[in-house]
Amino acid sequence: MEIRTDLALETKERFEKDNVEIKGVVIEEEKLDMECKLTTVKIETENGAKIMGKPKGSYITLDAPEMTEDDEEYRKYVANEFAEILRTLFPRPVRELSVLVVGLGNRDVTPDSLGPRVVDQISMNRHLVKEFGKDVFGWEEECQISGMVPGVMAQTGMESQEIILGVMKETKPNLVIVVDALAARSAKRLNRTIQVSDAGIAPGSGVGNHRQAINKESLGVPVISVGIPMVVDAVTIVNDTMWNLLDALSSDKRSADFCDSLKKFHENEKQELIRELLSPGLNSMFVTPKDVDESVRRVSRMLASGIEIALGTAADEAMAG
Amino acid sequence: MEIRTDLALETKERFEKDNVEIKGVVIEEEKLDMECKLTTVKIETENGAKIMGKPKGSYITLDAPEMTEDDEEYRKYVANEFAEILRTLFPRPVRELSVLVVGLGNRDVTPDSLGPRVVDQISMNRHLVKEFGKDVFGWEEECQISGMVPGVMAQTGMESQEIILGVMKETKPNLVIVVDALAARSAKRLNRTIQVSDAGIAPGSGVGNHRQAINKESLGVPVISVGIPMVVDAVTIVNDTMWNLLDALSSDKRSADFCDSLKKFHENEKQELIRELLSPGLNSMFVTPKDVDESVRRVSRMLASGIEIALGTAADEAMAG
Amino acid sequence: MEIRTDLALETKERFEKDNVEIKGVVIEEEKLDMECKLTTVKIETENGAKIMGKPKGSYITLDAPEMTEDDEEYRKYVANEFAEILRTLFPRPVRELSVLVVGLGNRDVTPDSLGPRVVDQISMNRHLVKEFGKDVFGWEEECQISGMVPGVMAQTGMESQEIILGVMKETKPNLVIVVDALAARSAKRLNRTIQVSDAGIAPGSGVGNHRQAINKESLGVPVISVGIPMVVDAVTIVNDTMWNLLDALSSDKRSADFCDSLKKFHENEKQELIRELLSPGLNSMFVTPKDVDESVRRVSRMLASGIEIALGTAADEAMAG
Amino acid sequence: MEIRTDLALETKERFEKDNVEIKGVVIEEEKLDMECKLTTVKIETENGAKIMGKPKGSYITLDAPEMTEDDEEYRKYVANEFAEILRTLFPRPVRELSVLVVGLGNRDVTPDSLGPRVVDQISMNRHLVKEFGKDVFGWEEECQISGMVPGVMAQTGMESQEIILGVMKETKPNLVIVVDALAARSAKRLNRTIQVSDAGIAPGSGVGNHRQAINKESLGVPVISVGIPMVVDAVTIVNDTMWNLLDALSSDKRSADFCDSLKKFHENEKQELIRELLSPGLNSMFVTPKDVDESVRRVSRMLASGIEIALGTAADEAMAG
Repeated sequence: MEIRTDLALETKERFEKDNVEIKGVVIEEEKLDMECKLTTVKIETENGAKIMGKPKGSYITLDAPEMTEDDEEYRKYVANEFAEILRTLFPRPVRELSVLVVGLGNRDVTPDSLGPRVVDQISMNRHLVKEFGKDVFGWEEECQISGMVPGVMAQTGMESQEIILGVMKETKPNLVIVVDALAARSAKRLNRTIQVSDAGIAPGSGVGNHRQAINKESLGVPVISVGIPMVVDAVTIVNDTMWNLLDALSSDKRSADFCDSLKKFHENEKQELIRELLSPGLNSMFVTPKDVDESVRRVSRMLASGIEIALGTAADEAMAG
Repeated sequence: MEIRTDLALETKERFEKDNVEIKGVVIEEEKLDMECKLTTVKIETENGAKIMGKPKGSYITLDAPEMTEDDEEYRKYVANEFAEILRTLFPRPVRELSVLVVGLGNRDVTPDSLGPRVVDQISMNRHLVKEFGKDVFGWEEECQISGMVPGVMAQTGMESQEIILGVMKETKPNLVIVVDALAARSAKRLNRTIQVSDAGIAPGSGVGNHRQAINKESLGVPVISVGIPMVVDAVTIVNDTMWNLLDALSSDKRSADFCDSLKKFHENEKQELIRELLSPGLNSMFVTPKDVDESVRRVSRMLASGIEIALGTAADEAMAG
Repeated sequence: MEIRTDLALETKERFEKDNVEIKGVVIEEEKLDMECKLTTVKIETENGAKIMGKPKGSYITLDAPEMTEDDEEYRKYVANEFAEILRTLFPRPVRELSVLVVGLGNRDVTPDSLGPRVVDQISMNRHLVKEFGKDVFGWEEECQISGMVPGVMAQTGMESQEIILGVMKETKPNLVIVVDALAARSAKRLNRTIQVSDAGIAPGSGVGNHRQAINKESLGVPVISVGIPMVVDAVTIVNDTMWNLLDALSSDKRSADFCDSLKKFHENEKQELIRELLSPGLNSMFVTPKDVDESVRRVSRMLASGIEIALGTAADEAMAG
Repeated sequence: MEIRTDLALETKERFEKDNVEIKGVVIEEEKLDMECKLTTVKIETENGAKIMGKPKGSYITLDAPEMTEDDEEYRKYVANEFAEILRTLFPRPVRELSVLVVGLGNRDVTPDSLGPRVVDQISMNRHLVKEFGKDVFGWEEECQISGMVPGVMAQTGMESQEIILGVMKETKPNLVIVVDALAARSAKRLNRTIQVSDAGIAPGSGVGNHRQAINKESLGVPVISVGIPMVVDAVTIVNDTMWNLLDALSSDKRSADFCDSLKKFHENEKQELIRELLSPGLNSMFVTPKDVDESVRRVSRMLASGIEIALGTAADEAMAG
């Protein structure tokens, strides 16, 4: 049973907690202003990928604790840092890019609407470039952008991968940016971390709805995935609390031995145990904060800004500055 | 610490499980067609109210397990049964009613949008009756209906109670129907139960956002509250699973004594213990199914139909039949 | 300059008014219950197509004057009649169909949201059939359905045709049903007519946003287009009123001669004259009723029902009866 | 029959065009940066009010031609100028204000959603101030803000005025800011002008849905109304074009006399004539641009910023600078 987090950083932390060293995984950290932090997890070998449960590639995490507060300036700072990260992953100069931005997730479920909302807020120009050329608008240094919201299977009857692949066959972008709401392992991570990766989105990750990989192999062009954790899997929340309980109980003599033995379970055995104890139906549930509407409004705008800054199409020059 | 369920039925079940008999609380059950069941919990004394943690009054639960399935006929049946229940609580003949339907909750958070969506789907006529009279339309047997969606405090800066009270001073309805998404204790109850009550909505109930009572005492006219459980409190989910774990552990000799002693805790002590072990922030979180968008669309329409049938304003005569 | 109506019926009426007979165009009328009327315009020759300004094919108009009234039973009747029409155009038995339902238009502009809303309300099953097979669900007589909302160019940077073609390459449906809000010539037609056609959607039709044909030739499979007029082109409204004025003025001796000469203008000359007189910017404007939110809610549900009835997937058997 | 414009500036322009001087009406103009222009129309006497068809008071128009372009910096400039205008109308120092911001209009009809969207984007604080006091947050210089979206009569069965009055009785604000989509006379004005007034909103103004005045007399506290023209009345569009036609026809000898005599009609007679010639139903229709979704998104955000800047609660200090 796989571990329910979309954040490579959290997977890494878990191993660190267990004092397990992972060969083939390299970590770098950098402190930024505004109490932000940049952590890069590079999974360099197949062995590292296997242990981490994630495909090879770079997973760059921008931790910005205040990103949903009532502070536009802060989000501007974060948007610009996020744009910097994106640029490091671009496969060629911006002016040569033809980008398809894909907003995954369900527009009608508030925490899952992050991807669709980001796409809603990006100005597309592919149709204009195609009809009039870039020079008409003075867009020589900008890239060509198109965007789509494939919807979820219950709405379309189709896999996201099928829809994206089909559209790409017709419109031939040379870069895909996929934006999606992520599932974190810890409730503390919600709404404070942007993960950017060149590894694509693996099957079964996140809220568990994506069956088929969306990555360079499946799409044929580089894929940058962008996400912010908006939910925690209900099973995970229960699991974590339970082991906190066992920690607490260990100090009780009567149960210490027993608890200690339980705690030696592997993570997967633990989760399997919890899953058996859970109410049926909980497997398809998620945990999210009550004010998720305000959070998703704020961070979707921030991501849209960052993407436009990176692509050179931000209307607001001050923002890009 | 109060027990997190808006369903009187669940509170009752808990006491039954503990073999506690509650004086001043009467239960009646009735089987309906389509595997539906009607349970009435009457809290008749202050003592009963204190133990149940809910104000005196009738709490009628219509259990309809298939209400979110792809079956319109089933929802029609349920809407008609629901309309029957509503009528038993009307304080006077329908044609003398002037009803204000209030949709509580946050339109922008999917599971909390139940109340606003129900109001959206009810045809209002108070403005027409006021301007032209009932006889112009042949509405002599119908009631007068108005509706409002007060929004949540973060959106308005005002308590729902203030907004409702103010509007009532101007428009003077003689009955208020309040529709709200409820929090259940058990994930199994989600999307399968309608609770109708004449006891109003008490402070701190449900998702924890309603500070001030909305009931006959505060509003000055009879209040019928209607709700369907759409979420479970995150704390509750963890709590329940945890005690399932302890049940399981009891069979292990090493921990049996210890677990047995823990299980003798009162419900409130248990919840307090869990709360301490939880990640900070989890208190303001809720658990909800991934397909909540489809559920809330279906049941909000069903409730709106039921209210219109009860009020004699349903456009669809076959439905009322 | 083309005449701004998406309704073949209106084009025909205009010629009838001018006492022009069109070779290659055949009309049939049939009275239905509930004051509904069925009119079929068959454009059988290239000559007919040229004169009508519409491609060859059948244009079936179901006129249902009360379709936006507060009367669900009426809409059920219309949904069933509409389903009958659809079935006559199916290229093979329902159980052999694999249908892609496409909702054209802009979800965020109320009158243009008809197509997206219809797709939102249809239950898709292609993903279930693909994974489990039809027999698991007892769906042997039903078809396979998928759906999509491509969005408008300003939102995606792509043509609708490109997106649809791409998705079809991956998912290979054998029938496409396209739903779109139409532009009528006359405000009287708004919200009372369903047009169903096997001729596809031609470039430049309707609100003027669709550049490229969506029809059997371009998509390679039969295309059924479904629409309801939701808007009138602003230019058209002005034009019609103006010629009403000239009619009125003709009775005034001083201007009779002049007006008569003006009225001999061809339709296109007239429109060109109006266009010159209009405020700049009016070309990209439309006229729509103030209560378009209620209308589009009602008729989108009706169309979704009709499509599900025709495809054998309506949950509500009574509806199909 | 009244002249269909909510813009005092347009009413004034009409009289200027006819070379009519209006006693009791004073105009001031001021050029701003970015090709913006400020025009103040002061209606000082009852005579002026009668002629203008608008109540006494100041009508300040900020003309900003590029306000819906893809240029955030421009909208920031306009938001700050708009905030300046608001401040000149505040009846007392900001820190003593308790403001109720009311978003009039229909959330579900795109051009009419301006008011609701503005309220959605303003951070409310009244509930926090009431519970914790201003000093806890360092908000001594800020005002207290609450907000509401009363909805339209078809949705609520109540007049906006009733709802606002009721809420005010409970929450006792000392200033009301009303935001509403306006109807312009000329399509050229759409989406380029902000009108701010201390005269309130008069019955029958705008899209014709507001029956009862929302002003200082009816509410008992100062009212500042804010609006941007989003629609043109369908009748107005037809009317204007028609008289352009007659202008053109006057050069034709055969009809010159006749047209000249028609043109001597009063404005109201002209409109009455047009109304008779129009299709029935057109009276309840409006004209709006096809890209109104993008415009309303952009300008609603700009107005929300301006209001927050004026009230000292803008999160973004750079914006207020």
